[in-house]
Amino acid sequence: MPGSIFNQQGVFMKVAICGGTHGNELTGIHLVRRWQKTPSEIQRNGLELSTLIANPAAYQQNRRYVDNDLNRRFSLKDLNDPSLQSVEELRAKEINQILGTKESPKVDFIFDLHTTTANMGLSVIINSLDPLVKKAAFYIAQKLPDVTLFYQDSDRNSDNFLMSLAGKGGLLIEVGPIAQGLLRAEVFEQTRLAVMAGLDYLEMHLANEAPEVPEQLPGFQFVEKIKFPEDENGQLIGMIHPELQDKDYQPLNPGDPMYLLETGETVYYQGEPGLVPSFINEAAYYDQHHSMSLMKPITIKL
Amino acid sequence: MPGSIFNQQGVFMKVAICGGTHGNELTGIHLVRRWQKTPSEIQRNGLELSTLIANPAAYQQNRRYVDNDLNRRFSLKDLNDPSLQSVEELRAKEINQILGTKESPKVDFIFDLHTTTANMGLSVIINSLDPLVKKAAFYIAQKLPDVTLFYQDSDRNSDNFLMSLAGKGGLLIEVGPIAQGLLRAEVFEQTRLAVMAGLDYLEMHLANEAPEVPEQLPGFQFVEKIKFPEDENGQLIGMIHPELQDKDYQPLNPGDPMYLLETGETVYYQGEPGLVPSFINEAAYYDQHHSMSLMKPITIKL
Repeated sequence: MPGSIFNQQGVFMKVAICGGTHGNELTGIHLVRRWQKTPSEIQRNGLELSTLIANPAAYQQNRRYVDNDLNRRFSLKDLNDPSLQSVEELRAKEINQILGTKESPKVDFIFDLHTTTANMGLSVIINSLDPLVKKAAFYIAQKLPDVTLFYQDSDRNSDNFLMSLAGKGGLLIEVGPIAQGLLRAEVFEQTRLAVMAGLDYLEMHLANEAPEVPEQLPGFQFVEKIKFPEDENGQLIGMIHPELQDKDYQPLNPGDPMYLLETGETVYYQGEPGLVPSFINEAAYYDQHHSMSLMKPITIKL
Repeated sequence: MPGSIFNQQGVFMKVAICGGTHGNELTGIHLVRRWQKTPSEIQRNGLELSTLIANPAAYQQNRRYVDNDLNRRFSLKDLNDPSLQSVEELRAKEINQILGTKESPKVDFIFDLHTTTANMGLSVIINSLDPLVKKAAFYIAQKLPDVTLFYQDSDRNSDNFLMSLAGKGGLLIEVGPIAQGLLRAEVFEQTRLAVMAGLDYLEMHLANEAPEVPEQLPGFQFVEKIKFPEDENGQLIGMIHPELQDKDYQPLNPGDPMYLLETGETVYYQGEPGLVPSFINEAAYYDQHHSMSLMKPITIKL
């Protein structure tokens, strides 16, 4: 192997950057293509980099997925279930051979690049218990303005996210607001800078030159997805209330306007106080009539 | 026929409201459903109203279209061409039986409801030479704030828009910015108000009570669609420049930033001065790598 991929101590890490896990989120696809053309931008001492367009069939159709969401297909159980034969189930098994296998991974760390139609800015989603993964996220949060951290305890084998294939896990970079099926320069740049900062941290870590990151940072933990109002036939009968639209991460209190019904009536939040909404009016949630996710403020510890 | 659809003079008009001509533009679909449930909102003296979800197959898949753009399938030649058998070509022929035929139309006037990812506010597109159609558009422009009028001379038989099926033609209501695949309350309301104002005008016209509208109003005429920068393999290599993003209808002058290339370079506008961009970064344009339309300011005369 070429010497350049080793750091001074001969330690190295294998890192994969994935875009297009959802086929109509173009930002990650175009970043991956850019880095396939000019790999120097992602090269770092001690890191061996690979890139992947995760769901080219969905990208071809300009859809999130063809049969079902690729980013829920990576549990060990599903990867090993020969009866699962949808486009995305088969693609997950292919990716398991390319980056995994889950039981014996070829890569240590995955950056998975996503976008959202919600006004969430730059969010970094951590599914791994590994301190290095959390440290890389903390570094990104310190380096870039207005980063929001999501943390989810997760058992690697049952975790169904693509990034759970990596030995240490990885980070899902989620930037918005942006419509599906297009590029915006500022979203592209935020996503690029998040990956750059993450790669920088891994490089410095391997060289024993990583700067201190805090022992803990504030973040959010997923509580539940909630549904739009429906009629007796299960059809949508309301929209996000204009006063809630674009207010991701702002605490919801009982009595706050939540939905505007077709009838002109307002539905008010009646749930637990102190939770915050995220993914408000995310287009990809509409297939299940989900209107948003509710999150709980937490302290994330290394 | 029930008397309520006749005005005092016994004159009446048949009007159709169509949503979902593009299957992932949900605003029109949900407005049509609302009016199917509560038709009183669109009932007007002298008008016989019908509503139509134009492309349910595309809506089912949450895509603009299944095989090709339904809103380009309504020229008389194509409607009468038995060799055209795509999902949308067949659906156009069905709609021609429901609302047309183009040679002998069942409806006089069509409102066709669309949305755009571009920051275009409320635009009203007039394809008809009929003064009544222009007057209805002028009334909407006077009644609602910040309406932009598009006018296109068009020969009804060769016109391939859905609304060209109607005897007098119709108005395409185009509201943005909104991502595909979701609803926003303010876009929904703007679209609703535009249709309400249009119906009000038709009702008043039939009762000989229509208010004066100006003899002419400023608007825009389509000049051309222009393409994103591509590499030698035809792949996109640039994005809308941040300084141009969301600046629909603001004049472009030679030397204005237009695209930001992957390399970080800026491409400047080099075309004719005085044109204005519209549909900047419209998601539906990406399949052809179109970045925007250029429009010429014109005076629209009745």
